[in-house]
Amino acid sequence: MAVGLHGLPSLAPVTGVRLGTIAAGIRKKDRRDLVLIECTPGTHAAATFTRNRFCAAPVIVAREHLAKTAPRALLINTGFANAGTGEPGLQDARACCGALAERLGCRADEILPFSTGVIGERFPRDRIIAGLPACIAGLSENGWAEAAHGIMTTDTVPKGSSRKTHLGSRTVTVTGITKGAGMIRPDMATMLAFVATDAAVAPAVLQACVSAAVDASFNRITVDGDTSTNDACVLLATGAAGNPVIDQTGGEAYAALLNAVTEVFTELAQAIVRDAEGATKFITVEVQGGRSEADCLAVAYTIAHSPLVKTAFFACDPNWGRILAAVGRAPIGQLDVGRVTIHLNEIRVVHNGALDADYTEPKGLAVMRLPEIRIGVDLGAGTASARIWTSDLSHDYVRINAEYRS
Amino acid sequence: MAVGLHGLPSLAPVTGVRLGTIAAGIRKKDRRDLVLIECTPGTHAAATFTRNRFCAAPVIVAREHLAKTAPRALLINTGFANAGTGEPGLQDARACCGALAERLGCRADEILPFSTGVIGERFPRDRIIAGLPACIAGLSENGWAEAAHGIMTTDTVPKGSSRKTHLGSRTVTVTGITKGAGMIRPDMATMLAFVATDAAVAPAVLQACVSAAVDASFNRITVDGDTSTNDACVLLATGAAGNPVIDQTGGEAYAALLNAVTEVFTELAQAIVRDAEGATKFITVEVQGGRSEADCLAVAYTIAHSPLVKTAFFACDPNWGRILAAVGRAPIGQLDVGRVTIHLNEIRVVHNGALDADYTEPKGLAVMRLPEIRIGVDLGAGTASARIWTSDLSHDYVRINAEYRS
Repeated sequence: MAVGLHGLPSLAPVTGVRLGTIAAGIRKKDRRDLVLIECTPGTHAAATFTRNRFCAAPVIVAREHLAKTAPRALLINTGFANAGTGEPGLQDARACCGALAERLGCRADEILPFSTGVIGERFPRDRIIAGLPACIAGLSENGWAEAAHGIMTTDTVPKGSSRKTHLGSRTVTVTGITKGAGMIRPDMATMLAFVATDAAVAPAVLQACVSAAVDASFNRITVDGDTSTNDACVLLATGAAGNPVIDQTGGEAYAALLNAVTEVFTELAQAIVRDAEGATKFITVEVQGGRSEADCLAVAYTIAHSPLVKTAFFACDPNWGRILAAVGRAPIGQLDVGRVTIHLNEIRVVHNGALDADYTEPKGLAVMRLPEIRIGVDLGAGTASARIWTSDLSHDYVRINAEYRS
Repeated sequence: MAVGLHGLPSLAPVTGVRLGTIAAGIRKKDRRDLVLIECTPGTHAAATFTRNRFCAAPVIVAREHLAKTAPRALLINTGFANAGTGEPGLQDARACCGALAERLGCRADEILPFSTGVIGERFPRDRIIAGLPACIAGLSENGWAEAAHGIMTTDTVPKGSSRKTHLGSRTVTVTGITKGAGMIRPDMATMLAFVATDAAVAPAVLQACVSAAVDASFNRITVDGDTSTNDACVLLATGAAGNPVIDQTGGEAYAALLNAVTEVFTELAQAIVRDAEGATKFITVEVQGGRSEADCLAVAYTIAHSPLVKTAFFACDPNWGRILAAVGRAPIGQLDVGRVTIHLNEIRVVHNGALDADYTEPKGLAVMRLPEIRIGVDLGAGTASARIWTSDLSHDYVRINAEYRS
C-alpha cells in the first residue's frame, strides 16, 4: 500500500554517526531486527518519549540514561516491545546496555535502548546480546538504509528522510529514519525515529529544536488513536560540520536548523501515515477559523479518529454527513453550526452548516477517488488553525491487527 | 451476528398506546420504514436527545414541540436522517407534523418527528405524508413488534424489552423498542428508543426518571465512538394503570418505576451493542478503584474505543498489552501503573502493572473465545467505579460502513 511512497530516498551520511544492522533471530528468522547506532564522542542528544503511563522498560532506561550523560550508542530491537514486563523487563534492558557498553568500552548509561513489537511478552536478552559483535563489526556511516529496514515491524516500506542546509559557510546534513504503522497517535513522538545531524548544537538548544519539530510533525499524525507504550524520537548532533555552536534559539542558524529538522521529521511522520496499517488514503485534516489551536486540534482529531469517516474514505464514498457529525460531537466549548464550512480538496461540500448549493455527488466522488485528500473545515469562529495527517480504515487494518501475533 | 440475542422478547401492550407500521417506500421498496406511535390524551412524555451540535431537523422540532405541550403522536421514518439539511430540512419535518396533525385532529406541535438514515440528503416528505393514512388505519395496541421492525436500519434484529412492576395494588407495564447498530456513542440517549408505560407519573418526575435511566443505560454504550446527529429516547406515560400519580422522586413507587424503566432501557441499550455493526463479541468494561466516576469512565471509553483492543477481541487474541496501553493513555489526572490490575472475566492477567505470575496464554485464550467477555480494570486509586458495554471491530464493521450508501 504505502500511499505516495516510492522507495527510500537517498539518505546522506552524517559524519560521526555509524550504523550496523543484523538479523539476530529475535522473533522471526532471517529478518533484520537489531540495529546499533554509534555516535562519536562529543555528540549531543535530545529526545522525546511517549506520555503513555505504561511506558516500556527501554523508555524508562533511555530517559534515565539521557538525563545523566550524552549517549555513545543507541541499540534498537524489533519483535518485542519490552513493555508491561515489570521489573524483569527493566533488568533485561539494563543487561543489554551493560553488554554493549563492555564491547564498546564505554559506560552502561552511555547506551540508550529502544524496543518495538509485541507488548507484555518477556524480552529475549540473550539473542540480543549474542548479536552485538556482528552489529559492531558492521558499523558504517553508510548504514542508514539498512537500519531503516532493521527497525520495521508491520511497516511495508522502510522510511527515511535527508536534508542539507547552510549554516553560514558550512553545509550541515540532517538524516533520519523512522518506523511505525499501527498504534500510532503520538503524544510526544512516535515509536521510533532516529535522526542525526553533524551540526554543532548546545544540548538545551537541541532539546528545544526536537520539541518544536516533534510538535509540528510526529505530534500531528494519527492512525488509530492508540498512543504507543514505546514512542521515542531521538536527535543526535555530532558537531562534525564545524559550524559555530548554535547556543541560542533565536537567530538565523537556529532557524535554518529547525527548518531542516522539521522538514525531516515531517517527511518521516507523513511516511508513517502513508504506510499506516491497511491504508489506502493519505488524508490531511485542516481546521481553521477556531477560537484556539486546541479547539482546532480537537475537531481535527475527532474527524481523524471517527471509524465512520475512515471507512467512508476507504470506500471512496463522499459521505460528508459523517464528517459533519464528527465536527458536531467534537469536545469544544462552543460551536455555531450555521457557520461551519467543509471542503474536500477544492470542492466546497458544506456551506453555513448545510449542503452547498453547488455541490454534486460526482464532484465529491472525483475527490474521494484520489489517494491523497484534504479535509478542510472552517469553524467560522476565530483565527486559530491546526493541521494533522491520518489514514483510512480498511479491511486490511482489521486483518493486520487481528492476525498480528499469529 | 447479534451476540446473545435470540429473537424479540414478548412485548406487553401498554394501555393507551397504539402503534402502526407500514412500508412507505421511503428509501427502499417493500421494507417497513414508517412507524406511528399514538398515545391517549393525558399522556405525559419525557425525552433526551443527542448533544451533537449538528443535531437533525426532527430533533430540533421534537425538542421544540415537547417543550410546548404533551405529544399525541410520534412519527418515525428510516432511510433519511434529515440531518445537515438546513432550513429546507426543518420545513420538511414541520410539514410532516402538520399533515399528520390534520389527519389525527390535533395540533402540529402535538406531533414529535424522528428520523434515522443517511445524513445530508434531502428528505422525501411526500412519500411520508402519502403513507400516513395506512399508518393510522393500522394502529393497534399490539403493534410493538411490528414497530420494532419498522425502525431498523443496519440492525440485523429487532430490539425490544418489556417489564411489569407493582405500584401498590396496581400492576404497571413498561415496554419499549430501540434501533441502532453503528454511529453509536450516545451522549444523551441513543437513536432511537421509544418506551411507554401505563403508570401515572407527573411530567417533571417522568423527566427525572428518563434522565436517570438513560445515564445508566444508553449513556453507557459505545460501538464506534461516533455520537449520532439523531439520538433520541422518549418515555411515554399514559396513566392508564390508575395508580396514584407519582409526583416526587423520593418514595417507593418512584423507585419501583425507575427500576423497571432502567431495566428496560438497559436491555435495549445492550441489545444495540449485541447487534453492533459486525459485532462478534459483547464486551463489558468495568473499571473500579478510581478517584472519580469520571476517571473510571475515561479509562473505560479509552479501552472501548481502541481499534487495537477491538480487533484483538475480534481475533479472540488475549493481547492484553493493548488493554494496558489503552489504560496508560487514558486522559485522567493521575495513574500509578504499579497498582493497576486487569481481569478478563475471572482470569487475572495484569497484577500490579505487570503480567500476573499465574497467567498463561491458554487461560486468556479460553476467555477470549467466549461471545461475552468482561474486561475488569482496577486502578487501585480510590473507590469510584463505572461500567460500560461495547463490541469488537471486525471485517464486517468495515464492510458495512464502506458499503452503507451503495
